[in-house]
Amino acid sequence: MSCDFLKEANPGIQGLMPYQPGKPVDEVARELGLDPERIVKLASNENPHGPSPKAVAAIQAELTELTRYPDGSGFRLKQLLSHELGISPRQITLGNGSNDLLDLIARCWLAPGRNAVYSDYAFAVYPIATQAAGAEHKIIPAVNWGHDLDAMAAAVDEQTSVVFVANPNNPTGTWLSEKQVRDFLDQVPERVLVVLDEAYFEYVDENVYPDGLKLLDDYPNLIVCRTFSKAYGLAGLRVGYSLSSTQIAETLNRVRQPFNANALALAAAEAAYQDREYLERSVITNKAGLLQLETAFRELGLDYIPSVGNFICVEVDDGERVNAALLKEGVIVRPLRPYRMPNHLRVSVGLPEENQQFIDALSKVL
Amino acid sequence: MSCDFLKEANPGIQGLMPYQPGKPVDEVARELGLDPERIVKLASNENPHGPSPKAVAAIQAELTELTRYPDGSGFRLKQLLSHELGISPRQITLGNGSNDLLDLIARCWLAPGRNAVYSDYAFAVYPIATQAAGAEHKIIPAVNWGHDLDAMAAAVDEQTSVVFVANPNNPTGTWLSEKQVRDFLDQVPERVLVVLDEAYFEYVDENVYPDGLKLLDDYPNLIVCRTFSKAYGLAGLRVGYSLSSTQIAETLNRVRQPFNANALALAAAEAAYQDREYLERSVITNKAGLLQLETAFRELGLDYIPSVGNFICVEVDDGERVNAALLKEGVIVRPLRPYRMPNHLRVSVGLPEENQQFIDALSKVL
Repeated sequence: MSCDFLKEANPGIQGLMPYQPGKPVDEVARELGLDPERIVKLASNENPHGPSPKAVAAIQAELTELTRYPDGSGFRLKQLLSHELGISPRQITLGNGSNDLLDLIARCWLAPGRNAVYSDYAFAVYPIATQAAGAEHKIIPAVNWGHDLDAMAAAVDEQTSVVFVANPNNPTGTWLSEKQVRDFLDQVPERVLVVLDEAYFEYVDENVYPDGLKLLDDYPNLIVCRTFSKAYGLAGLRVGYSLSSTQIAETLNRVRQPFNANALALAAAEAAYQDREYLERSVITNKAGLLQLETAFRELGLDYIPSVGNFICVEVDDGERVNAALLKEGVIVRPLRPYRMPNHLRVSVGLPEENQQFIDALSKVL
Repeated sequence: MSCDFLKEANPGIQGLMPYQPGKPVDEVARELGLDPERIVKLASNENPHGPSPKAVAAIQAELTELTRYPDGSGFRLKQLLSHELGISPRQITLGNGSNDLLDLIARCWLAPGRNAVYSDYAFAVYPIATQAAGAEHKIIPAVNWGHDLDAMAAAVDEQTSVVFVANPNNPTGTWLSEKQVRDFLDQVPERVLVVLDEAYFEYVDENVYPDGLKLLDDYPNLIVCRTFSKAYGLAGLRVGYSLSSTQIAETLNRVRQPFNANALALAAAEAAYQDREYLERSVITNKAGLLQLETAFRELGLDYIPSVGNFICVEVDDGERVNAALLKEGVIVRPLRPYRMPNHLRVSVGLPEENQQFIDALSKVL
């Protein structure tokens, strides 16, 4: 009988459930005997446009260099972000997706005996990163599916090292105003790190929605996380970045794997960031798509959670049943039972015809 | 005065020194005012051939899919490895380079109060991963620049969770026979994980050099790590894999970020693995290059450490001084003071003309 290495693993690992990604098209096609060409995937909050042609061109230009290690410092991408955002490169940390940054934060500041505060119905990686570090979870009940920031501030105790705040929040699409965020930050002790996850930042068009970057000067315990996976259309390449004080960035950089973002990812991110036309088109398509979906939900008499992201949650009587029926129609969305929202489906905003295919299928199966 | 977040970080982080990569060509050119085209980089054990044309073609075919998340399970690459290696896909863990695997191992099984055993002059990521996890280091003096396996086995105590063994070892190029590795594994308690790092496996052509895969059945506490960064020529893309028991793989997969290897990396690795011609050419070029370098060292009256990797260590009177002089000649190698080998330079094996450029420069500066 050999050793039980799961039992030998660090505290936290045994209770850890890996992230469940959306079902890939190929897998659904295989399982249900469907034509992959007819399947529409609205399950992973991906950009429905093809990638930025500038990003593709930047990758092409790098292909002869694949035998060389990436630039571990991400010099060029950090220079660009620094210039565009008006922040020192030393305040930027690059991640293999923003997942990597959330994980690095947990590795630096969470451990057994410490805890992380986050909202119910928040992004699945917060509990995973917390659990992997062996820390305790303080999950704060939501209000109207959104963060209850006062309750979150009140939950901070001596053992709290990190608070995760998503703005807007995935999967619910709810968002927080600048006043709400500032009031919250004013209540949190300065030794507690606040992670402001702005993965869907570029999609939001609300007057009082805050730009986390502008809060950094006032709150040195703030880390703002962003990503190239959504509005910049590079989910396949995994690039995220965080903005913080220099000291926090330097701490994260100690733990960061030296080549966490690969050579093609760095090149593509640099090009995508400069493709303003692509970004604008993505945001416009998303706004129109949200309207198309909301209109359809109202016509079908379905409740939904108003969203500012590139996805929206709709309430059905039984999420798992409706999801299974949609799959048979070739439509992949995300059932939210894992988020303790068993009656909700999260639908990513697609191209108009993809949204319509989903609406038609939903009308049919209800 | 704001909070000191480095001080607030977990044990280990404060003593952590990030990995120092080899200097990029652009940086050396910029610093020394040299033409980047005339610089030869033999500093990072990279494959001197361009990438496999099959890997490049596989990337081209994936470019329209960049807005989609990668297949988090790495289904196709694992199927391929499984088929070729005769092992279950459930025994394979994919990493963002093998650095990621070493890091995952540390996160799962190292922590304050535990320790890792490894040899002096071994790969720099072992101390980094150990330190990041807050564990203790047991660094065992080397014998003839190689692992002293008996001393390493004897150093294992109740608090030891992991032993790192590199075969061959980077930076020294020394290697261990199957008998040596088996005798060692026989001495290590079965609750202690042994990581057999075979990053340079494909280059070794020695009769009694072991294939770690074939030891797995006899030693369920073994994890074998390999990479696509060296003989497969994909350092820029970051793909490594480990082979282990199913239970160890499932534990690592809990902590692994769901999309650690990106979409282009997965596609390229799959193609490169099937390009046997590329692999053969890489191995042949390397063997000839090692001979070319050894011959030159003997002619120059320099001691070197016989190597089976794609690099070789040569002894000079002052590594830092000779390295600085070589940089001025446009040749980048790796000075080994950070490895406590101040009189050695590690030179990666390049193409014949690159090796010659290094030899000429070395002759000139000595």
